[in-house]
Amino acid sequence: MPNLVDDVGTGGRPLRVGMIGGGKGSFFAGVHRAAMRLAGRFEIVAGVFSSTPSVSREAGVALGVPGDRIYPTFTAMAAGEVRRSDGIDLCVIVTPNHLHYEPCRIFLEAGIPIVCDKPLVNASAEARELVSLADRHDTFAAVTYTYTGYPMVRDARSRVRDGEIGDVKFLYVEYLLEWLANDPSKIGKGGIWRGDPAKAGLTGALGDVGTHAFNILEFVSGMRCTAVNANLQNTVAGFGLDDTDVVQLKFGDDAQGLLWCSLAAPGHRNGLRFKIVGTKGTLEWCQEQPETLHLHRMAQADLIYRRGGSDMTEDGMSCVSLPAGNPEAYLEALAVLYADYAKALLSGRDWRKSLRVPLTDLREGLRGVVLSEVCLQSSTAQKWEAFPDA
Amino acid sequence: MPNLVDDVGTGGRPLRVGMIGGGKGSFFAGVHRAAMRLAGRFEIVAGVFSSTPSVSREAGVALGVPGDRIYPTFTAMAAGEVRRSDGIDLCVIVTPNHLHYEPCRIFLEAGIPIVCDKPLVNASAEARELVSLADRHDTFAAVTYTYTGYPMVRDARSRVRDGEIGDVKFLYVEYLLEWLANDPSKIGKGGIWRGDPAKAGLTGALGDVGTHAFNILEFVSGMRCTAVNANLQNTVAGFGLDDTDVVQLKFGDDAQGLLWCSLAAPGHRNGLRFKIVGTKGTLEWCQEQPETLHLHRMAQADLIYRRGGSDMTEDGMSCVSLPAGNPEAYLEALAVLYADYAKALLSGRDWRKSLRVPLTDLREGLRGVVLSEVCLQSSTAQKWEAFPDA
Amino acid sequence: MPNLVDDVGTGGRPLRVGMIGGGKGSFFAGVHRAAMRLAGRFEIVAGVFSSTPSVSREAGVALGVPGDRIYPTFTAMAAGEVRRSDGIDLCVIVTPNHLHYEPCRIFLEAGIPIVCDKPLVNASAEARELVSLADRHDTFAAVTYTYTGYPMVRDARSRVRDGEIGDVKFLYVEYLLEWLANDPSKIGKGGIWRGDPAKAGLTGALGDVGTHAFNILEFVSGMRCTAVNANLQNTVAGFGLDDTDVVQLKFGDDAQGLLWCSLAAPGHRNGLRFKIVGTKGTLEWCQEQPETLHLHRMAQADLIYRRGGSDMTEDGMSCVSLPAGNPEAYLEALAVLYADYAKALLSGRDWRKSLRVPLTDLREGLRGVVLSEVCLQSSTAQKWEAFPDA
Amino acid sequence: MPNLVDDVGTGGRPLRVGMIGGGKGSFFAGVHRAAMRLAGRFEIVAGVFSSTPSVSREAGVALGVPGDRIYPTFTAMAAGEVRRSDGIDLCVIVTPNHLHYEPCRIFLEAGIPIVCDKPLVNASAEARELVSLADRHDTFAAVTYTYTGYPMVRDARSRVRDGEIGDVKFLYVEYLLEWLANDPSKIGKGGIWRGDPAKAGLTGALGDVGTHAFNILEFVSGMRCTAVNANLQNTVAGFGLDDTDVVQLKFGDDAQGLLWCSLAAPGHRNGLRFKIVGTKGTLEWCQEQPETLHLHRMAQADLIYRRGGSDMTEDGMSCVSLPAGNPEAYLEALAVLYADYAKALLSGRDWRKSLRVPLTDLREGLRGVVLSEVCLQSSTAQKWEAFPDA
Repeated sequence: MPNLVDDVGTGGRPLRVGMIGGGKGSFFAGVHRAAMRLAGRFEIVAGVFSSTPSVSREAGVALGVPGDRIYPTFTAMAAGEVRRSDGIDLCVIVTPNHLHYEPCRIFLEAGIPIVCDKPLVNASAEARELVSLADRHDTFAAVTYTYTGYPMVRDARSRVRDGEIGDVKFLYVEYLLEWLANDPSKIGKGGIWRGDPAKAGLTGALGDVGTHAFNILEFVSGMRCTAVNANLQNTVAGFGLDDTDVVQLKFGDDAQGLLWCSLAAPGHRNGLRFKIVGTKGTLEWCQEQPETLHLHRMAQADLIYRRGGSDMTEDGMSCVSLPAGNPEAYLEALAVLYADYAKALLSGRDWRKSLRVPLTDLREGLRGVVLSEVCLQSSTAQKWEAFPDA
Repeated sequence: MPNLVDDVGTGGRPLRVGMIGGGKGSFFAGVHRAAMRLAGRFEIVAGVFSSTPSVSREAGVALGVPGDRIYPTFTAMAAGEVRRSDGIDLCVIVTPNHLHYEPCRIFLEAGIPIVCDKPLVNASAEARELVSLADRHDTFAAVTYTYTGYPMVRDARSRVRDGEIGDVKFLYVEYLLEWLANDPSKIGKGGIWRGDPAKAGLTGALGDVGTHAFNILEFVSGMRCTAVNANLQNTVAGFGLDDTDVVQLKFGDDAQGLLWCSLAAPGHRNGLRFKIVGTKGTLEWCQEQPETLHLHRMAQADLIYRRGGSDMTEDGMSCVSLPAGNPEAYLEALAVLYADYAKALLSGRDWRKSLRVPLTDLREGLRGVVLSEVCLQSSTAQKWEAFPDA
Repeated sequence: MPNLVDDVGTGGRPLRVGMIGGGKGSFFAGVHRAAMRLAGRFEIVAGVFSSTPSVSREAGVALGVPGDRIYPTFTAMAAGEVRRSDGIDLCVIVTPNHLHYEPCRIFLEAGIPIVCDKPLVNASAEARELVSLADRHDTFAAVTYTYTGYPMVRDARSRVRDGEIGDVKFLYVEYLLEWLANDPSKIGKGGIWRGDPAKAGLTGALGDVGTHAFNILEFVSGMRCTAVNANLQNTVAGFGLDDTDVVQLKFGDDAQGLLWCSLAAPGHRNGLRFKIVGTKGTLEWCQEQPETLHLHRMAQADLIYRRGGSDMTEDGMSCVSLPAGNPEAYLEALAVLYADYAKALLSGRDWRKSLRVPLTDLREGLRGVVLSEVCLQSSTAQKWEAFPDA
Repeated sequence: MPNLVDDVGTGGRPLRVGMIGGGKGSFFAGVHRAAMRLAGRFEIVAGVFSSTPSVSREAGVALGVPGDRIYPTFTAMAAGEVRRSDGIDLCVIVTPNHLHYEPCRIFLEAGIPIVCDKPLVNASAEARELVSLADRHDTFAAVTYTYTGYPMVRDARSRVRDGEIGDVKFLYVEYLLEWLANDPSKIGKGGIWRGDPAKAGLTGALGDVGTHAFNILEFVSGMRCTAVNANLQNTVAGFGLDDTDVVQLKFGDDAQGLLWCSLAAPGHRNGLRFKIVGTKGTLEWCQEQPETLHLHRMAQADLIYRRGGSDMTEDGMSCVSLPAGNPEAYLEALAVLYADYAKALLSGRDWRKSLRVPLTDLREGLRGVVLSEVCLQSSTAQKWEAFPDA
């Protein structure tokens, strides 16, 4: 179903989307829209694209949104759309981090399904409130942990579940970027808010990329982190938050983990890489080469699994769109998430059952927020802290 | 401008597209439509989606095409669209190879721009006729050599032009696939026509993938092949055409080349790889890892250029949509072509000047057809044949 | 000078070597002898090859050692060799870890230069005593941290010193092996003593491979670890010591580090890999592909330096024996160390000045022993411990 | 047996070697001696190290050869050594190509086993004479096709024989070097003779590296080339012979091949790479990463075999010295050949049976010479030529 190129005979009506944020200059909103176009099942029909009315209007017009559905406020939009018989099926929230909470709350209160960028919000209390709002009516609510949309990440998840690497003993993840290195004065507006506690939240690198890294470990392994020992460091003068972090992890009594992330590692563009060590094998995947999954085995030939291969797992294969050799990449991964969302939204009450892999929902979003909180606590106290069963 | 994710403020009206072919089961038509959606500047409004009326209608409806623009024949469609004030801006032809010629001719005669899959047609006389039809009114007409849409291929082209590898002396390309290996009886309908001379044309592997390989050498180097010495072989019983070919190439007096292609090389999905050897350096690129371009230098460190890097050439950078590290792939490459097409089609008379890199137009399509003809001649005579200045 | 294949006109007399350990079945002793043969400047003329006289004699005879120089005890050998005018120039100690201390002490007391495998000894008090014995007469005494003999490791060291990556901010090293994974009952005698505290010392994985990883970080960066926060874990039932360790490191106020080592990571043969992150670039090297050094740079092409390239540093080039492309590997790395030793031993009083890179001497051996001690302390207390200025 | 580090209990007396060539400045002679030291079973006891007596003497002294066994001429040496009860067991010939024939002939006539560098000689008539001389008494005579000593090359050979890739259909090999590119005036004496027909023989690149490439295809596949279609080109002004060659190959009726070699491909140090395509899989190996062998399979995960793995073939494993992960490289490969030679020389009459893989003997040397002859003929006539059943 999530095949992105089979647009004939897929069936199902297009879904009506409202967007929060995404005016000119909002790069990631454009990425979301490209992924929606690729998924082929969405049309943007309403929005508050900016807090500046003229910017919002310009974006709405460019996107073909009717003038009366370019709203001045979230509240007006929620109220307006709820009233319509052709009201939005989904609200996609792509504002900066510190502006996630309010729209999430308002649309959930209106019973409108939401998709929100990670990190969900900047405080776990807020996240818990959103979880509880969604739970009230079992409203569809997703957090876009984009990397879980890569077929080989889902393939890895299945292989771990199937026991291909035996019992998981150690989970390593690194997520290295370079943009903050060298000279923070060069950083444009896009970067600076990430170092501003008022906007980015409690943590810098950890909240920004560490949450992705943490989520992918839990997603792939199916295990839950139970304790952390974190060392959050600021190494770049002028950046107000941590930019380089090491977090030791426990996953119950049986498995250890390690997370290393940095915004200041020259030569690393978007270097997310994990290595899951089991008793029988080790699985390794790297975001910049997303088409392959390496299985390292005891004293035997390495296996390089490839997206689209006949030996792919069902979960992996079910989100493949192109044959092996015609590579898929980042936009396709996000489009796989949107294809999942479409499937769930068209599935009615039992929407969770419609998906092969668990939705990265608000609870996963909450875990990302909790990660920042407990790691900050651990780093300050220089000791292990329990990870609450969020 | 061909930035695929910047959909706000790009300006320009959407282009109206008619499609020939592309009913249910036509995989590559879906790929073209996904690329068009990604490019964000096209809407499909008319078509003959199949020679079977019910299949055509089903596809048209699924794609939201109004009933009166789902036409029974190419002629009816050309006539109907030419009459309309909101007639199609472009006709995209995605039928099997042997069904390219007729629609190409009909729409060019009607003065309607076309996009056609490669190989253009199966005989050079037909191709020359199409070239001449397009020339008559300088009608926009493109052949989708998809791999020329990869940013790093364009980057390679610029580097060669800028003299980064000195004088080009040797051009190597290989294009290896596996689907025909092992057991031809397993090959489905999609594969079998490729071995049927009545449908695939004069050659098998050469026409199917060799043309891509040949085109990318000419595109990247800016050089023109002047002679070939080919050895076309059939190694798989039951396949009616060549499946494994070696072609020696001359590019004037100064450079030699070598093309190796096969449909029967197990373990190769879509293995297009070139190596351009100059007096000062060697450039190497591989389609399955399209994000990087390797520069091998005399006795010095290799350079691994990366899409999105600050040291990318302007031609390369101008078709980049995502930051380095968030990988782009096959659909993005095809969407880059469609973004080029949109730009050209919106540029009026001087459309050729609107593009940074030369359009792979019908002349390039013609060269692909000629390649099959002269190689077959050379292989039969077991000697060098001149490549006509097509 | 350390060119291993230029054996004509190198000059210098062959050095007379005595060996402690290295009877039949002692694999690494054979490795040392092969490296000595390769270095081409050594002849084994004396030894106590085993505590079992017949085994010792058999090895001595096989190695062509005269019967009167196959000694029953270390003491007898030291006394005997000191008396001879053609006594040994060097004593090479390749016994299991817990049998290093005694021969080291005895030969140092006799003023005989030594080469000892790492880890030097199992307690820092012993190591300090050996340091002090060597200091007394400035006796040559080396610990074979083999990986420091790789040309590209020395090249990396020079590049860091030359400021090529700016200020070092983060030092990552991993050293993963697989032999202990899966089923410890399969482990032969060679492995089991590594898990026996009485023989292996305080730590398992950390002493065995972590010391190498730690040493290479200090060697390449020229920095000194000042504090550790360790988590030593036993994950394999039946193995008496830690098998999987994470150690956070501080290098003064300016740089952080991270060491991950394991004996139970399936699919990893001898996976030593470091990544030194500076403000301007990141250097990465992997022992299993020792011929290349990767420089990751800010937003620019990666550089892959290669052993033997014209852009190699002088320190790197000075230990190259074969042209680039004719690969060198592990035995060559150890032979480079032995070539260094030969050079130093033939240089008289100022032997330290004869070497381009600092000898990994007993102080480095001591640091390896201290590493085990402070990490064990840290892991038990679950807090940071200062690393003494050993 | 060919384990290079197990020097205790291997048994067998050391073999007495005479050397032809190898005075100061003869780089490859040093490489041979290093490999012999590594193999641990040879001692150089005689030689004509140079045609200049003083250079010969200097080398002999440096190598510890007694003065009376540093001979003025090949004839004197053959006569002298045959007379001695402790005469040489083997004569190693490491002179430039055009000086191979005479010593080979003289020592074979004296019944003394020889090892000669490739290419054996410069004319097939000479090579046939040497073959016939060796045949007369079944004298051991080897040509050092060094790359056949790599464990993973032998592993590949076994896998092909065992049918792991099905029927071999296509054999590709490339061998690219850079030294001649750019500026031939920079080329030192070592390079220039390679372009001098009087010294290098009939061909340049083909004789120098093409022979290796050709040999490795035949060695790994066990197949015999039956026809060639060659295009030998000189692209570098001032170099008197071909520097860039393409040779199409036939192996009987069933398999095709392709050989591409060049001395002028910037960024390639010693780039020997083969790809053997079978009906079920494709094997790929690259000399610069000799530790791994890639098996590409139909629609399944690639396998990366590794030297020392538990899934290695017996032929491969039997020449492994170090555990997987402690890499072996070029000198080890040559030492494996010498270990084979030692084994054969100590095995008496049935020496051929002592070896697991066929010796690359004078017949293989002859095939290399014939390759140059028939390719030159083919290239001149621009047509296929039969490869005689040499």
